Amino acid sequence: MSSNPSFVLRKPLDLVFEDRPDPKIQDPHSVKVAVKKTGVCGSDVHYYLHGGIGDFIVKAPMVLGHESAGEVVEVGPEVKDLKVGDRVALEPGVPSRLSQEYKEGRYNLCPCMVFAATPPYDGTLCRHYIIPEDFCVKLPDHVSLEEGALVEPLSVAVHCNKLAKTTAQDVVIVFGAGPVGLLAVGVANAFGSSTIVCVDLVPEKLELAKKFGATHTFVPTKGDSPNESADKIRALIKGAGLSDSPNVALECTGAEPSIQTAVSVLATSGRLVQVGMGKDDVNFPITKCIVKEITVLGSFRYCHGDYPLAVQLVASGKIDVKKLVTNRFTFKEAEQAYKTAAEGKAIKIIIDGPEEE
Amino acid sequence: MSSNPSFVLRKPLDLVFEDRPDPKIQDPHSVKVAVKKTGVCGSDVHYYLHGGIGDFIVKAPMVLGHESAGEVVEVGPEVKDLKVGDRVALEPGVPSRLSQEYKEGRYNLCPCMVFAATPPYDGTLCRHYIIPEDFCVKLPDHVSLEEGALVEPLSVAVHCNKLAKTTAQDVVIVFGAGPVGLLAVGVANAFGSSTIVCVDLVPEKLELAKKFGATHTFVPTKGDSPNESADKIRALIKGAGLSDSPNVALECTGAEPSIQTAVSVLATSGRLVQVGMGKDDVNFPITKCIVKEITVLGSFRYCHGDYPLAVQLVASGKIDVKKLVTNRFTFKEAEQAYKTAAEGKAIKIIIDGPEEE
Amino acid sequence: MSSNPSFVLRKPLDLVFEDRPDPKIQDPHSVKVAVKKTGVCGSDVHYYLHGGIGDFIVKAPMVLGHESAGEVVEVGPEVKDLKVGDRVALEPGVPSRLSQEYKEGRYNLCPCMVFAATPPYDGTLCRHYIIPEDFCVKLPDHVSLEEGALVEPLSVAVHCNKLAKTTAQDVVIVFGAGPVGLLAVGVANAFGSSTIVCVDLVPEKLELAKKFGATHTFVPTKGDSPNESADKIRALIKGAGLSDSPNVALECTGAEPSIQTAVSVLATSGRLVQVGMGKDDVNFPITKCIVKEITVLGSFRYCHGDYPLAVQLVASGKIDVKKLVTNRFTFKEAEQAYKTAAEGKAIKIIIDGPEEE
Amino acid sequence: MSSNPSFVLRKPLDLVFEDRPDPKIQDPHSVKVAVKKTGVCGSDVHYYLHGGIGDFIVKAPMVLGHESAGEVVEVGPEVKDLKVGDRVALEPGVPSRLSQEYKEGRYNLCPCMVFAATPPYDGTLCRHYIIPEDFCVKLPDHVSLEEGALVEPLSVAVHCNKLAKTTAQDVVIVFGAGPVGLLAVGVANAFGSSTIVCVDLVPEKLELAKKFGATHTFVPTKGDSPNESADKIRALIKGAGLSDSPNVALECTGAEPSIQTAVSVLATSGRLVQVGMGKDDVNFPITKCIVKEITVLGSFRYCHGDYPLAVQLVASGKIDVKKLVTNRFTFKEAEQAYKTAAEGKAIKIIIDGPEEE
Repeated sequence: MSSNPSFVLRKPLDLVFEDRPDPKIQDPHSVKVAVKKTGVCGSDVHYYLHGGIGDFIVKAPMVLGHESAGEVVEVGPEVKDLKVGDRVALEPGVPSRLSQEYKEGRYNLCPCMVFAATPPYDGTLCRHYIIPEDFCVKLPDHVSLEEGALVEPLSVAVHCNKLAKTTAQDVVIVFGAGPVGLLAVGVANAFGSSTIVCVDLVPEKLELAKKFGATHTFVPTKGDSPNESADKIRALIKGAGLSDSPNVALECTGAEPSIQTAVSVLATSGRLVQVGMGKDDVNFPITKCIVKEITVLGSFRYCHGDYPLAVQLVASGKIDVKKLVTNRFTFKEAEQAYKTAAEGKAIKIIIDGPEEE
Repeated sequence: MSSNPSFVLRKPLDLVFEDRPDPKIQDPHSVKVAVKKTGVCGSDVHYYLHGGIGDFIVKAPMVLGHESAGEVVEVGPEVKDLKVGDRVALEPGVPSRLSQEYKEGRYNLCPCMVFAATPPYDGTLCRHYIIPEDFCVKLPDHVSLEEGALVEPLSVAVHCNKLAKTTAQDVVIVFGAGPVGLLAVGVANAFGSSTIVCVDLVPEKLELAKKFGATHTFVPTKGDSPNESADKIRALIKGAGLSDSPNVALECTGAEPSIQTAVSVLATSGRLVQVGMGKDDVNFPITKCIVKEITVLGSFRYCHGDYPLAVQLVASGKIDVKKLVTNRFTFKEAEQAYKTAAEGKAIKIIIDGPEEE
Repeated sequence: MSSNPSFVLRKPLDLVFEDRPDPKIQDPHSVKVAVKKTGVCGSDVHYYLHGGIGDFIVKAPMVLGHESAGEVVEVGPEVKDLKVGDRVALEPGVPSRLSQEYKEGRYNLCPCMVFAATPPYDGTLCRHYIIPEDFCVKLPDHVSLEEGALVEPLSVAVHCNKLAKTTAQDVVIVFGAGPVGLLAVGVANAFGSSTIVCVDLVPEKLELAKKFGATHTFVPTKGDSPNESADKIRALIKGAGLSDSPNVALECTGAEPSIQTAVSVLATSGRLVQVGMGKDDVNFPITKCIVKEITVLGSFRYCHGDYPLAVQLVASGKIDVKKLVTNRFTFKEAEQAYKTAAEGKAIKIIIDGPEEE
Repeated sequence: MSSNPSFVLRKPLDLVFEDRPDPKIQDPHSVKVAVKKTGVCGSDVHYYLHGGIGDFIVKAPMVLGHESAGEVVEVGPEVKDLKVGDRVALEPGVPSRLSQEYKEGRYNLCPCMVFAATPPYDGTLCRHYIIPEDFCVKLPDHVSLEEGALVEPLSVAVHCNKLAKTTAQDVVIVFGAGPVGLLAVGVANAFGSSTIVCVDLVPEKLELAKKFGATHTFVPTKGDSPNESADKIRALIKGAGLSDSPNVALECTGAEPSIQTAVSVLATSGRLVQVGMGKDDVNFPITKCIVKEITVLGSFRYCHGDYPLAVQLVASGKIDVKKLVTNRFTFKEAEQAYKTAAEGKAIKIIIDGPEEE
């Protein structure tokens, strides 16, 4: 194979395989990676169904996929820390090296970000992908490539916990038991919190949350107000941790009632990290934020140090990301993978790279 | 005078003078202060007009006033740092000494707070007020008692700037040019910011903002969306400071359009400190907070260290609080003072203590 | 027994039992505790052998002991959160409630601190000890009183890790495998660090360090310079963690060569927390601190929040403090306990309270 | 002139003018700057006299100079924010764009730093110097090129104040009234501190310190111990600021007695920022650091954001750097400039670029 088979979204619901030319390394610090495993993300599905997210519109055919791991097959002339054969997790967004945001380690906010499978940039569901070496994290021998692909959502969970400064002192509440919420529970646990409540409408997902370290789970009662839910949550954890009210909330749903419940249930001086994206605007209890001096922090993707820490959390056995995977597909079955994802029942779907077949 | 003449709110719009018994020092660390100057605050006016604010309802007659300074006339047996004759600014809220919040220096959040003129606690518009010595801040000789009374709103402005961590690196935008907004401008200036925009609907107030250090002022155009206002503000300050978008917003109005404009105009990684209280809930651009990783911080009153710093900012000449005062009344004219305040045209009204007459 | 049998140091090497009057609760927020278990600390032994530590000289007979747990036998009239029968760990230092340090949660630095068994204040090796309720931490049923006594050194270890801001991102090196060093390892592990090196001259102690979570141990070679030791440590952990140089050093020995090795081995931006007290002055590699921008933090005792977190770390099973205990004595054998401690071979010695017999 | 006249140190005390080839822009983000003004730094003089500083040895002829400003004469093809004719301050150290330190904004610690006039890299005392555009800071029209050259030492002063987190709340003590100490006083003032003590052995220099904002000055008495000096300093500032002990010390001398005095005089929780480099090792009062929980921070050069803020402090008039300049020389007189500097009496010497003649 000298070409680059790729899985392409042409427009909403229009998926094709294309055989693109094999890419060449231009930047001397870059490597060529044979992509081996790729997870399907909610954003991929959104592009597939709707052709865009907010201002990001698919105007030209775009290769999908950005949660990937693979094997280095070629290195640029100035690459120092990687060699052919190394197995790596791919950090899919590369910022401008000159931007203020990059210099501050907050490169996720760089306006010039080139992010895989965010229009107009192609993604990783292809044979070969070119990436700077410092946006690869080498996987130890005992970490699988599938785990390597799952480092992407784990990095989102690492990032929000770092923004929250989650420590052993904190009582943490996580809203949502999808992939990011579950991993946020896992990271809160790995960061030392010994009281972690997970909230979701689906009891089965909460069973999985317990496996990631949730000490308590909560299903909101239909019709309860945010204050009523908050009272029930406080009653649930009373006496269990250092405080009867959580002081860290990781909101991974984007749903208005969850956000409102988060503000209600937080202790004074609590921190709410907003990870989940839903409606652009929500009805927000701002006065409660004032009188409790709550800090609300927006959390977007991941940045400096998140990917390496995520790999280490997997490598040290602190978080078993494999528990997330509910479905696996070959590269040829990629369209079926997307259709399955669109049904909304899978937790995490993994697609092989073309060379795996 | 062995009694304690006091200015009392019995119920909405029902103000009387009462002659209450002279209070006795119980706590050995407390002092008795002859109140000399008291500012009228928006919350006082709210109690006067409506009989309550949120959960705080005036159910029994309550002495009004909490922005005061006076002279120590008696000291408890264990008082160490004050003596009779000392002139002091009074910090009007005393928390529980055993609470977690007090221990953390965030005693403004203490659930057991005893706050002057917040029901059911009496305020300072009286002859003698008892207060622990460590909630008094001694005034240097060259600082007047009127300035001492103005330390209260200045502490609110100090507090929000401390939460914002305003420094010389920051481009600051302040929404609202009432007493707190104006002082927030002054504190941002004293903290080193050299680019400060003040926003208000009333051009006259913005003239005063310039005297407190605003380098730019902005009157929103009726009908403009928050994004449109944000664009105009960015155009206004382009090239003036270290960034063309503010990275600190001090929202001192509580008005929904201001809050929305604040989120729109902030740079990535910006901090929005919400000081002004308006509606309990607002329509809030949460997705913008995520993608720009904005931090929103609730700011409530003031806490450890704010009062002493406010006194020092006055004493060092960095902020001329006297510029706020538009009207002065004697103690006997207190009802007139409240009526004037209720008309909404005065910036800051000062009422003498009963002994001043 | 209506009296208060107490174990008293009269002067160096002069220990006696005295029967003192049973103390009465004065402060309405205080409780009377029947002391059940007390650990022997290095500082106690220092007073026993030398009659003083630095400026703290034993000038009058002083009850020894400050690492204690016991049972509440009487509560003051305003006590809210404790009742007779509650089992509690005693935080032995009570600061002034009015001090700046207390308000900042750094009450360990309060100049008016009343600390058990620090001259001139009596310690806890007695039947009944009076203490404010908020300086007691209630023990859950499954936590023993012996574990409760061990909360004191654990709080020292919590405190230094909190100053270091130890997280899952950090590669930690702990100098010294005495009680504080071992617990510092345990806390670093509980705070999420997955690469922890412990350094000591005694290989047996390092075996215990592994049980507390050390992933690597190191015995310095006699005659090696700090730089040579640092090189060997870096070689030891190469590839194991997120960095080949530790970025957090917890120095629990106070020994000059350890301090120098800590500075040598730390990565750029590293943090050195100095816990161990040895010589007043040391020969210190200040230029290395500059060019690597190292932060050096002094760590003294513990403060706000440390005791509750320490109890929780025990209660949640994250740290098994019992592993420290090498010797146990009855109250009557207290002098023998001190002689044993003075020999320097025991790790941690526990003495029963008088009522345990 | 198509060549590049340069002022070169061949070995200690051996200075020559060389006519080197005009450099070409290689990196598309770089610009060519005609150097107009260059300050002489203590490190330059050290190289001149001794041929090296620590591990940095002049092994081959090296162009001197790193405190420079100039005019852009050519821009690389991808330069966006600069154009020919722009006047810029040159940040003389460019790190690796891939390093961890760069990503964290702590690029001053990058092990691959290319720093002007630090062996083996040539400096800026030449006609044309090539530099990436993001390591230039554009000077506003009203800021002179001489002021632009002085941005370099000002950035050192900005950096140490940022590490100290100097604010309006702080009582600051600066040791040393050389260029960096004086500018550290100026920055502490610009950051809002209203109580600033400057310490030096030379009373004349302290007069200049007052012009930069020192509120107090102190000349140590010969023979006084650090504790004695500390007592005198506390007596000097008693009552002036928020604390009678400084809580921030900026040590800009590197002299052992100054460092010891800094630790003695600091309040509990104080911060000592070590800027001055003297002996590699000093006798250091570590126990005082523990019992006062002092934080010691090494400060090395400057990093992300320091240069732009320094330019802004000059542009806004907050710091008048020109007051530092005691001597000015033409490019041809450069050797005389170095000889004058070596005599140690000048505060700051400025040398013109070759095109100025």
